[in-house]
Amino acid sequence: MQKPSSHSEFEIIRRFLVTPNLSFPREGIELGIGDDAALIEVPPDKHLAMSMDVLISGIHFPLGADPSLIANRALAVNLSDLAAMGAEPYCFTLGLVLPHSDEKWLASFSGGLEHLARQYNCPLVGGDTSSGPMSISIQVQGLVEKKRATRRSGANVGDRIYVSGELGDGAIALLALGLDSHLGSEFTFAVSEPSSECRQFFEDAYFKPQPQIGLSSAAGKLFSSAIDISDGLQGDLQHILDQSEVAGNIRLEAIPYSKSALCCVSPENRLLAALFGGDDYELCFTVAEKDCAELDSIANDLGVSVTCIGDIKAGKGIEYLDADGSPVELNAQAFQHFSATA
Amino acid sequence: MQKPSSHSEFEIIRRFLVTPNLSFPREGIELGIGDDAALIEVPPDKHLAMSMDVLISGIHFPLGADPSLIANRALAVNLSDLAAMGAEPYCFTLGLVLPHSDEKWLASFSGGLEHLARQYNCPLVGGDTSSGPMSISIQVQGLVEKKRATRRSGANVGDRIYVSGELGDGAIALLALGLDSHLGSEFTFAVSEPSSECRQFFEDAYFKPQPQIGLSSAAGKLFSSAIDISDGLQGDLQHILDQSEVAGNIRLEAIPYSKSALCCVSPENRLLAALFGGDDYELCFTVAEKDCAELDSIANDLGVSVTCIGDIKAGKGIEYLDADGSPVELNAQAFQHFSATA
Repeated sequence: MQKPSSHSEFEIIRRFLVTPNLSFPREGIELGIGDDAALIEVPPDKHLAMSMDVLISGIHFPLGADPSLIANRALAVNLSDLAAMGAEPYCFTLGLVLPHSDEKWLASFSGGLEHLARQYNCPLVGGDTSSGPMSISIQVQGLVEKKRATRRSGANVGDRIYVSGELGDGAIALLALGLDSHLGSEFTFAVSEPSSECRQFFEDAYFKPQPQIGLSSAAGKLFSSAIDISDGLQGDLQHILDQSEVAGNIRLEAIPYSKSALCCVSPENRLLAALFGGDDYELCFTVAEKDCAELDSIANDLGVSVTCIGDIKAGKGIEYLDADGSPVELNAQAFQHFSATA
Repeated sequence: MQKPSSHSEFEIIRRFLVTPNLSFPREGIELGIGDDAALIEVPPDKHLAMSMDVLISGIHFPLGADPSLIANRALAVNLSDLAAMGAEPYCFTLGLVLPHSDEKWLASFSGGLEHLARQYNCPLVGGDTSSGPMSISIQVQGLVEKKRATRRSGANVGDRIYVSGELGDGAIALLALGLDSHLGSEFTFAVSEPSSECRQFFEDAYFKPQPQIGLSSAAGKLFSSAIDISDGLQGDLQHILDQSEVAGNIRLEAIPYSKSALCCVSPENRLLAALFGGDDYELCFTVAEKDCAELDSIANDLGVSVTCIGDIKAGKGIEYLDADGSPVELNAQAFQHFSATA
């Protein structure tokens, strides 16, 4: 067993992370990188929201992927958790494990973090580096007004169920990237060769998910509950329903898809991707009927797409509805499999 | 590329971590595990201290080590960072990556965390689990009165330099555990076979470092600066000296060693272990001369050993002194090597 690595090697990593563009000052951050711990202030009217995600090479991103894209994805999926809580990004910490220090890799990785860190005024304030099989642990901290966090448990009977953006692209992207999907061997493109525009679209959906911080910040006060869609709509909505002790229905024809998903994937596989695929990092949230017009207006002003896909009901579980509002059984084998295990 | 793992498998991990003994309630924790983020409160007169450490299997702990000991070490080294800041433990998050879920392993691991979490009233409030090469990322959060954090930058000329406990056992433990040490092939036991008591002592020193939270909590107000000794006294003291823009001397004969280190290791290798070994997780701190009597009294009441090993001077760098107070050149090859690279 060796010491993690020589000091000099990990000084190199440090040099690429402790930069004015990444560990920049921000109000409330009393002490950033360089001591035994970072020190931050939390205003008395706010809670600190904290969320950690670990990304493993070969599992959460392909071996050999562009380091700037890996970095973007790693920070974006964490910011998406803050969006789901209605919290404003504050700062983040990074545990970076690399087999060896590679200056070109590090420069690109650091650049990918900088972009989002600057965009959301969310500097790097601490962390750890080590040698080992590549992995990236990020913890984001956010601030949210007390009593205003959008928990999973707040949905009420009569609320409408919304999603932001479009669903399924995260899972379809695995096909575009030539990677295995847990959705099975039937989950393929419907076209023999997607256009290069569609390929690029899916790659961006995978590596550059857009955390819905703007929507959450502007309209979060209208959300009675929220979650980010990381595991697929069915599983994530189910968390809201379970914790709120209610049921919900989803109008299948209302689920929003991207042009590329509509163009390259069969209706059944699109639905599979949306319900069970995951990696979309859009928000699923509920809004009281009286607030829906205001939500639509705010979303419209932001240029963010929000779609009402169903309603909260009394009871338990999710009911799927067809275009006429009649219940649908998702009876294809794949749906049964995932419905049973999700 | 597969999804991290099936839900059902990671539900198992969750079951061992989301327990009343590990994710217990605590004042100020508004929301723990189970939503997109944890929510905590920070009193307006306090700063939140945050520190993250990543432990990799085969690097920071031996493959096949007792999971309860791995857990203990992983949380203890993080708590040690809080002790070095003068912060009281508050809560922690865990990113746990395992090749597969193993109920026996998880039960033992969880038990190892529970012990320290309960001792320091520091519950688990969130995190992430994934399949992959085993690693453990922990971020601890602590609370410290504003302006009272013990930074590395506060040492003043005339202050005395102290260490808690005894030094070198963390590095010597690698020998007892049959693991490679970065201290080189000359770094060996002086005895052919250490007693089983000494072996057990070193193993405990490695896996059960005692974070000096009690000392820091009771006497931290007297520390002008502090750091935890994770990389060896020379390198860690140097951080204090650099950030405080001062020099320091160390009286070599004052460095405290355990009975087992005195019994099993040559004087030169003991010194090598203390100065360059690391993994001791004791505190190195500075105290104004006028406060030393109070420090000794507090430490005595706590039953914690503290040893004055030198003084802060004007200038730069560390001077080593012999028993007569004369400067010593650490001129053995090993010292030169580590002095150059540390």
